[in-house]
Amino acid sequence: MPKLRNNFIPGCFILAQPSHFYAVGVGPGCSDLLTLRAAAIIASADVVIAPQAKGSSRSLALEAVQPFLDQQEIHCAQYPMIRDNQATQQRWQQLAEMVIANCRQQRSVVQITLGDPLVFATSSYLLAELSDRLEPQNIHIVPGISAFQTAASRFGEALTLQEDRLMLMSASNLNAVEQALDHCETLVLYKAAGVIDALCELLNQRNLLAHTRLISCADQGEEELVLNSLEKWQPKKLNYMTTMIIHTGRRFWDEAKKYNS
Amino acid sequence: MPKLRNNFIPGCFILAQPSHFYAVGVGPGCSDLLTLRAAAIIASADVVIAPQAKGSSRSLALEAVQPFLDQQEIHCAQYPMIRDNQATQQRWQQLAEMVIANCRQQRSVVQITLGDPLVFATSSYLLAELSDRLEPQNIHIVPGISAFQTAASRFGEALTLQEDRLMLMSASNLNAVEQALDHCETLVLYKAAGVIDALCELLNQRNLLAHTRLISCADQGEEELVLNSLEKWQPKKLNYMTTMIIHTGRRFWDEAKKYNS
Repeated sequence: MPKLRNNFIPGCFILAQPSHFYAVGVGPGCSDLLTLRAAAIIASADVVIAPQAKGSSRSLALEAVQPFLDQQEIHCAQYPMIRDNQATQQRWQQLAEMVIANCRQQRSVVQITLGDPLVFATSSYLLAELSDRLEPQNIHIVPGISAFQTAASRFGEALTLQEDRLMLMSASNLNAVEQALDHCETLVLYKAAGVIDALCELLNQRNLLAHTRLISCADQGEEELVLNSLEKWQPKKLNYMTTMIIHTGRRFWDEAKKYNS
Repeated sequence: MPKLRNNFIPGCFILAQPSHFYAVGVGPGCSDLLTLRAAAIIASADVVIAPQAKGSSRSLALEAVQPFLDQQEIHCAQYPMIRDNQATQQRWQQLAEMVIANCRQQRSVVQITLGDPLVFATSSYLLAELSDRLEPQNIHIVPGISAFQTAASRFGEALTLQEDRLMLMSASNLNAVEQALDHCETLVLYKAAGVIDALCELLNQRNLLAHTRLISCADQGEEELVLNSLEKWQPKKLNYMTTMIIHTGRRFWDEAKKYNS
């Protein structure tokens, strides 16, 4: 994709302001699923902080925003992805220092994040660190398309209609997943890859395999896997970025109907 | 905002194809919260179907896409907003006929919808009517920023982190709302305006008023109401487009904490 920066920004869009911080959601990982606001703010920023997985030279979020990059200073930051609250907090304090130092020099700083900055996103940690140290009016959040929306768009079935309830959660805790199946019409599970066998067993017990859709790496250019049903599921290794959509039934205006009853 | 059509579409973006149908989410109602894909498809479409409230000459969705309109044929369609499945279906069958007639003439047709086309959106009805009558590869869904994402972006607090569960539903059924409070860490309610007094009573009983945020008409240019807490709530008439975000607690990796215990 060619560089868009110079001819991209119409004067009427919001641009990054000096000394302001922006947590910007860039969507699933392809450039045209950014919002215009996200693209314009990234294109006009002084500093862009991008996430980089440990031991990898790639940043999917940074690849997605390539068309909007030109002279910006890029910081690829490795974030702690471990379940250790103390290590997590130390790392975010360091990054917060860097943001504040840049803002003090009248520079605009953008942190890009895959998906939406407030839905299971590392942006939330940095925002928490910054909230006491920058003026509230200098902190901005630009929403992004979350993985469940991209996933659903590939299947074309409503996530919710009328009185339906949508639940979105991590698949890690199987007891919580089992409980959730009883309290919503559509259950979206992130991080399904690591527990896929146990999930399939649970869904089979509930007669829900035919109503479960699975997608890996939607709109990320490669390795895409799209399954309309898990009835014929054969165990296989899945990418970390796997989303599962389970339709347990519908709750119409005038009646409720469960698929497994 | 000036017209963007002529200088807007970089050659690398997906454009609307002849005989294809696109359900396109346009976000909350301001032009820069469309995705680039949504904008490029609308800008290159032959026909655009826009929703119009009964008895109103306005279409917020159409206003949001004005910068991307030029020669497209615009159909403002009144949708049935009543709780009558039969009347709803008849109206959608008529619209489906119109879409199919246009597709047969090698025209591209876009239906625009506020928010995301698969989250409490009328697009789902039209998609259901079209699914048997157009080739699957000629039907496309472009996700959009949903109202809960815009709402959350104004408060800057994570919707979900770690093991949190997010529930999204209509506020209409108070029993279902009460049950939901026990099964998620973040509850987002749409259509809260009509039942606001009963909701506040319920939240007061649960000591959750301080953890409830309310927003009307976020990023829609006017009438915006943003409340960080409902502790000092005074009864007032609210716009139909009111979203409530209730934080009942957090579910961290190593512990769960409820705000009302």
